[in-house]
Amino acid sequence: MSADQEGKPVRIGMVGGGPGAFIGAVHRMAMALDGRYQLIAGAFSSSPEKSQEAGRELGLDPARVYDSWQQMLEGEAALPEDQRIEAVSIVTPNHVHHGPSVAALNAGFHVICDKPLTISSALAEEIASAAKSSGRLFALTHNYTGYPMIREARELVQSGGIGRVLKVYAEYLQGWLVDPIEESGQKQADWRTDPSRSGPGGALGDIGTHAFQLLEHVSGEQVTRLFGHRSSFVPTRKVDDDAMVLLEMSGGATGTLTASQVCAGRENGLRLRIYGTEGGVEWEQENPNDLRVLKKDGAFEVRRPGNAYVGASAASLTRLPGGHPEGYLEGFANIYTAFAREIRGEQNLEHPYPTVEEGQRGVAFIEAVIASSEQNQWVQL
Amino acid sequence: MSADQEGKPVRIGMVGGGPGAFIGAVHRMAMALDGRYQLIAGAFSSSPEKSQEAGRELGLDPARVYDSWQQMLEGEAALPEDQRIEAVSIVTPNHVHHGPSVAALNAGFHVICDKPLTISSALAEEIASAAKSSGRLFALTHNYTGYPMIREARELVQSGGIGRVLKVYAEYLQGWLVDPIEESGQKQADWRTDPSRSGPGGALGDIGTHAFQLLEHVSGEQVTRLFGHRSSFVPTRKVDDDAMVLLEMSGGATGTLTASQVCAGRENGLRLRIYGTEGGVEWEQENPNDLRVLKKDGAFEVRRPGNAYVGASAASLTRLPGGHPEGYLEGFANIYTAFAREIRGEQNLEHPYPTVEEGQRGVAFIEAVIASSEQNQWVQL
Amino acid sequence: MSADQEGKPVRIGMVGGGPGAFIGAVHRMAMALDGRYQLIAGAFSSSPEKSQEAGRELGLDPARVYDSWQQMLEGEAALPEDQRIEAVSIVTPNHVHHGPSVAALNAGFHVICDKPLTISSALAEEIASAAKSSGRLFALTHNYTGYPMIREARELVQSGGIGRVLKVYAEYLQGWLVDPIEESGQKQADWRTDPSRSGPGGALGDIGTHAFQLLEHVSGEQVTRLFGHRSSFVPTRKVDDDAMVLLEMSGGATGTLTASQVCAGRENGLRLRIYGTEGGVEWEQENPNDLRVLKKDGAFEVRRPGNAYVGASAASLTRLPGGHPEGYLEGFANIYTAFAREIRGEQNLEHPYPTVEEGQRGVAFIEAVIASSEQNQWVQL
Amino acid sequence: MSADQEGKPVRIGMVGGGPGAFIGAVHRMAMALDGRYQLIAGAFSSSPEKSQEAGRELGLDPARVYDSWQQMLEGEAALPEDQRIEAVSIVTPNHVHHGPSVAALNAGFHVICDKPLTISSALAEEIASAAKSSGRLFALTHNYTGYPMIREARELVQSGGIGRVLKVYAEYLQGWLVDPIEESGQKQADWRTDPSRSGPGGALGDIGTHAFQLLEHVSGEQVTRLFGHRSSFVPTRKVDDDAMVLLEMSGGATGTLTASQVCAGRENGLRLRIYGTEGGVEWEQENPNDLRVLKKDGAFEVRRPGNAYVGASAASLTRLPGGHPEGYLEGFANIYTAFAREIRGEQNLEHPYPTVEEGQRGVAFIEAVIASSEQNQWVQL
Repeated sequence: MSADQEGKPVRIGMVGGGPGAFIGAVHRMAMALDGRYQLIAGAFSSSPEKSQEAGRELGLDPARVYDSWQQMLEGEAALPEDQRIEAVSIVTPNHVHHGPSVAALNAGFHVICDKPLTISSALAEEIASAAKSSGRLFALTHNYTGYPMIREARELVQSGGIGRVLKVYAEYLQGWLVDPIEESGQKQADWRTDPSRSGPGGALGDIGTHAFQLLEHVSGEQVTRLFGHRSSFVPTRKVDDDAMVLLEMSGGATGTLTASQVCAGRENGLRLRIYGTEGGVEWEQENPNDLRVLKKDGAFEVRRPGNAYVGASAASLTRLPGGHPEGYLEGFANIYTAFAREIRGEQNLEHPYPTVEEGQRGVAFIEAVIASSEQNQWVQL
Repeated sequence: MSADQEGKPVRIGMVGGGPGAFIGAVHRMAMALDGRYQLIAGAFSSSPEKSQEAGRELGLDPARVYDSWQQMLEGEAALPEDQRIEAVSIVTPNHVHHGPSVAALNAGFHVICDKPLTISSALAEEIASAAKSSGRLFALTHNYTGYPMIREARELVQSGGIGRVLKVYAEYLQGWLVDPIEESGQKQADWRTDPSRSGPGGALGDIGTHAFQLLEHVSGEQVTRLFGHRSSFVPTRKVDDDAMVLLEMSGGATGTLTASQVCAGRENGLRLRIYGTEGGVEWEQENPNDLRVLKKDGAFEVRRPGNAYVGASAASLTRLPGGHPEGYLEGFANIYTAFAREIRGEQNLEHPYPTVEEGQRGVAFIEAVIASSEQNQWVQL
Repeated sequence: MSADQEGKPVRIGMVGGGPGAFIGAVHRMAMALDGRYQLIAGAFSSSPEKSQEAGRELGLDPARVYDSWQQMLEGEAALPEDQRIEAVSIVTPNHVHHGPSVAALNAGFHVICDKPLTISSALAEEIASAAKSSGRLFALTHNYTGYPMIREARELVQSGGIGRVLKVYAEYLQGWLVDPIEESGQKQADWRTDPSRSGPGGALGDIGTHAFQLLEHVSGEQVTRLFGHRSSFVPTRKVDDDAMVLLEMSGGATGTLTASQVCAGRENGLRLRIYGTEGGVEWEQENPNDLRVLKKDGAFEVRRPGNAYVGASAASLTRLPGGHPEGYLEGFANIYTAFAREIRGEQNLEHPYPTVEEGQRGVAFIEAVIASSEQNQWVQL
Repeated sequence: MSADQEGKPVRIGMVGGGPGAFIGAVHRMAMALDGRYQLIAGAFSSSPEKSQEAGRELGLDPARVYDSWQQMLEGEAALPEDQRIEAVSIVTPNHVHHGPSVAALNAGFHVICDKPLTISSALAEEIASAAKSSGRLFALTHNYTGYPMIREARELVQSGGIGRVLKVYAEYLQGWLVDPIEESGQKQADWRTDPSRSGPGGALGDIGTHAFQLLEHVSGEQVTRLFGHRSSFVPTRKVDDDAMVLLEMSGGATGTLTASQVCAGRENGLRLRIYGTEGGVEWEQENPNDLRVLKKDGAFEVRRPGNAYVGASAASLTRLPGGHPEGYLEGFANIYTAFAREIRGEQNLEHPYPTVEEGQRGVAFIEAVIASSEQNQWVQL
């Protein structure tokens, strides 16, 4: 970093996130919240018209709105160093993570990419190689790790606060795919249920990987062996809309991971519970500011962000005093802001954002559950 | 029933429940609450002294306090019909359910017995046969079905209120066995971790069967196939203290059942969640008066007992107006009172109390999970 | 107590509680739960026929079922000492608390009476005098003090666990009287809204006194001054159905007490919150097993009954292990059982049950709120 | 608005919000989230050095960072119309709301100002006059009205969804001022407890006005009469740190409003409950995405944002699908974004943001509570 960039917003370009997209808008709000980014370029859609339309709405210079991500990378690379983008945000469907990631890294741009990393372990390995060889930074937006109480749980568990981990329960229950809404063209459902775009996992990739990543992130352990079962409750659906997995962890714990998108009435029920020899932690995404800390021999307590008693990791991700709820966007912004700080070379957290390695684990997890489910046997991970 | 017995308390004798027992006292409070029983005899302990001690504390006639259940059955049978006990309550460890059950039934007594029914399918079949051949009534105290909101859930689910059932999640998490407290002689832990008394299942039999029975009771479906995994997290423990099971249901649903007694800090976390094509139900034993009813297209509602809007089944099990919490003992008493009403020939609920057949299902479930866990494959149930 | 009575159930007679009564049945279940009472006499209704009907349903000897409480007291007193009742339970409307209380005490019976104590301070004083001069025991069923977590809160607050008390908030919100259901003869509403039977306070007496008693019980302080406001939202109603009170406490705290029976949709919303210089306690009757303990500088904790960490007072009122919810009837039974233990001369709690003096405070509170409300000024209490 | 400004971010300058300020940073994040503002000028502190320091950190052109708000207004007015700021955000202590508000309005700038409006009714009237005469827009950041579920409650209540309103309970409990932290220079406590800067109300102005505004906003009724009581629990404190108020509403309802900053352990406990003849609504700021809707004759339901069933008003303030929690900053941003949309002349909500008239009501409320508290009598409002 040249000294004159210190503290300056990171110039960034976006791939995907055009009209009708959900997650692109989320990424833009996450960039905006802390003022650490300047979105100045984009290839927002595979349709050049829609890309331009998005650019106009965002107030971008039309010259910086491109017809494709390839053109964006080329065009930006041709600009003077102090004008061109420094980083690329990739918010396309899963099958278009690999291409722009590798190309952007190789072109010298940092990359922040939506999850899951990509649609196969082979492609994941290529992204990881590119990240390594390019020397550029790569972040994966497993945004739930941006919640302060997830960091508090992580800090507590990994410092031995609940003893040796014995049991883990990760679940992610949604209901929005209980009907075949992809058949009537609902955009979010459409690509998520098309294996050529979502990859081989449906619910497994879309939400199961979040639960998996969160579990390993908080416990500090790895899933070593699993037994899986997948279903498509909507008969015409080409990917799973439900998965259940029995787990064994590297430290000897066992547990379950369930992901379902057919639990009618459930909104976004990501929940993590970990129990050890001395106590436990319990957390729910829909009420993210309460962390229950259970104790073997005492009353359970509820830790909440913004209070003086929380640990350094959680405190670093909190903007407001206690009782002022921060939510999904703030957690997402925490990932983006940490990434910007790393780009600017600032002192940062011990684990500022999810990495390409965590993305590889996620892809391997999808493949392992599929394999186990097909073979009806336990598989290593 | 002779006409002069109408409305009179049922004369009952107890097997087990002597000094230091937990569940025996619970059964006695459950009998007492609604005034439908008169406890007038007992063989409270395998130690005659302790049996007499318990009888004294309960104010029983010493002549009706026996040294063994065999003596009690014999002694009572010898009394005039209007003086002898009419029913036997069996609250011994699991391995002493079969003997007194079969003998009492054959001696013409009704039997109400603690769960699980017994320690093997063969013995379970003998109890079922005795119940059938004797023409006496047999109830199993799967007490959680006595909660009004469980009945409300059952009525809702079985009348199609959540559509076709797709997903089921039953869990029962406790933490009290995370340490080897059986080694220091804790009475409750002692027999529950001794396979000669608890039977082959530890956590599986003690709490897993509750979760299993509740799941089938509410869903109205049967578990048809399962894949299980058992653990003993305390190395010296001779029975499982943790079990995880993947399930397939008779109506096509899938789900998980988890039972653990090593989740430190968890008290008595029995939870049931069932989701269908139109909505779902969610219930937690530690907060038993709230039944969450989820709707595919609307806000979820919380139904509570004692209100005019609840169904007939729940209403019949509620003593108090809305907002006056009834709990574990009231639910337990509901089973006992329903049993007394059946004995007295009164009009009763469509499903007043858990039956011997449900007990057989529970034993079969234990055996199936053990088989699956050993064979590492799916098994039929 | 003669030695041969040790541990024997207390022989008790009931005044009121005939067909259709709500609270009479509650008192009987509260007596039954712990087996410390034998209900053997009663004057259950002002209608002799209904009294006999109730007696029959309860299986009483018809000779012990009386046409009036006067006859019951006379008839029982004439029986041999070891056969006659020892105590009287009074569950009549408020205007029939004073008569039987004074007469029963003077006739040598212990008395346990429903709240509020009576309908005027003058009558309350007469009951207190009779209790004193007779040497008999008198308990008032402010049943909410029977909840273990209320005792835990009391023990914590009075031992300085939250520092000096600064703020108190007591509220009791119900909705069942939002419509003039007394006009269609609803029995519970009928007498409660008739000042000749309920006394001058409507909601104030029926539920406001519970909130008031609980507040003084837990805080260990007295309300010294208050400013009140009463309303009758149903225009034809002759008593208040809503009251709001500003409070000053003997230790310098201030707060509010609100009682309403026109909060449509509210079931039985009794809630107590007390904050001091170091922390606070928060409790809700509809979820009575959770006591929130707030801390000035730490995470709040939730204490629950049946766990080893709770104090002696709460522990003495708990029958079951943690996670087995006890509710309204168990709390009510705790009052009855404590009363029986006192009658039997057993070692007991430091404050086993609400006393006649607390009843006098309650009546004085009603009168003070009425006076303040009429005069529009602060009044002493 | 000239056509070329359509959709362009609003150019804004800030008064206050320099180093160490809390609420200034909140306003900036609220501006940033939806990309509707460009912060390009500021007089961030009464210290020119600190003002420049803040400007540097925010990446502002040093020429647009001013030594005082007077200089900012003058300097900006002198710039070409398409460069100068269009609006001023005022985030100073209460006593510096009036000066810059009036001056900015008169200079032709729109104003968005923190609450309470100012420190006396006379000054409030001057701001209202300036707003009217200038033709500029004025918004007051009673940010809690930006929560979608508050709008849902408002829409429901005002459309008759709970019948005629009978009871209102507004409370705002915090604990952070239980100790005299102003004496050790805590910046937030310092000015809030200094009547020359906070105005005559302490807790009353700081948080009581939020509760008051929210109550009138949701109920659609006005407080017409009140009886107040104020305290300073910290003896050396020059303003109230606690207030309790009995209320009468324009539609005949009664209720209470309590505001306290000495409830140790309470974070930011703003709660609103309103009950009518047919049901009620209950909402808590610390869990802002749950709106309880009570029904006289049915189970209560919980409405949550992002679902298809919520009303238009709430839907317009929600960025994410159900189950993705939005919090304090999103609610705050909703106020800012609505203000920007009004400035740009876009179609907007029926009540996009709190107005100067609501600010006047708040100041009048403070004064009425003080008057009532001093006179010990009910006062009109």
